[in-house]
Amino acid sequence: MKRAVFGIATVTLASLAALPLAAQAQFAKPEDAVKYRQSALALMGAHMGRVGAMVKGQRPFDKAALEHDVAIIEMMSKLPWDAFPPGSTQNSKAKPEVWSEPARFKAAAEKMQGEVQKLSAAARSGDMAQVRTAFGAVGQSCKACHTDFRNR
Amino acid sequence: MKRAVFGIATVTLASLAALPLAAQAQFAKPEDAVKYRQSALALMGAHMGRVGAMVKGQRPFDKAALEHDVAIIEMMSKLPWDAFPPGSTQNSKAKPEVWSEPARFKAAAEKMQGEVQKLSAAARSGDMAQVRTAFGAVGQSCKACHTDFRNR
Repeated sequence: MKRAVFGIATVTLASLAALPLAAQAQFAKPEDAVKYRQSALALMGAHMGRVGAMVKGQRPFDKAALEHDVAIIEMMSKLPWDAFPPGSTQNSKAKPEVWSEPARFKAAAEKMQGEVQKLSAAARSGDMAQVRTAFGAVGQSCKACHTDFRNR
Repeated sequence: MKRAVFGIATVTLASLAALPLAAQAQFAKPEDAVKYRQSALALMGAHMGRVGAMVKGQRPFDKAALEHDVAIIEMMSKLPWDAFPPGSTQNSKAKPEVWSEPARFKAAAEKMQGEVQKLSAAARSGDMAQVRTAFGAVGQSCKACHTDFRNR
């Protein structure tokens, strides 16, 4: 299976030059890419929910737990973006703009990653006022990208 | 939603004392736990596949890529185990033994985590013979747990 994929990647490489090589090589089937990116985004969402609960005071402040959540969010924030190969639309809410406006999609992803970096720094500081601000900015970046690139 | 869950957790805490508190508090609905653990295990599987491709020579040796894959595997190896609250069986292949034999399930998870630690050390060493051995042991631990605790 993997071998077949590498074969396909070689044949079509020229026509896919705009995409990172990783996007072609790492998924045997488009639905594997969908599952991969949805998994990363689901974990990011779950841990954003946990940070949100702490920010809202629904969960007691615990710096170690916060840093754990944010470490997962940070790792997950990097994973989905190579997992949008062309045609990976089955069981997906991705809008066509993901593929028709790749520069804008990339910018939205990078905006989110930048905000997550700030959330990481805030979590390490342990200052919940900083965490609250940074968490809000990450949430806004999620929402902005979902509005533009994800169907409801 | 979160608030309601904390309410439930308080009421039923005594009857669920065998489970870590995290398992009750962190998922609003059983299906959220299912999605969470499946997401972590899917990412672990995807990156195991990438390491496997390198081990089999289907992907060129790249120490940085290997360490990246293994870092994700290591983080994911820790996540699923608090996400098996009782009753979280919908859209799940988990066998009843997950809940009827919790000590054996925990031991299987810890076995896997131990093998992943060895894979991490092997990846840092960059010695592909070590990586191959450690990768095989992780794979065996996945398979053993799936045989006992996951329906096909």
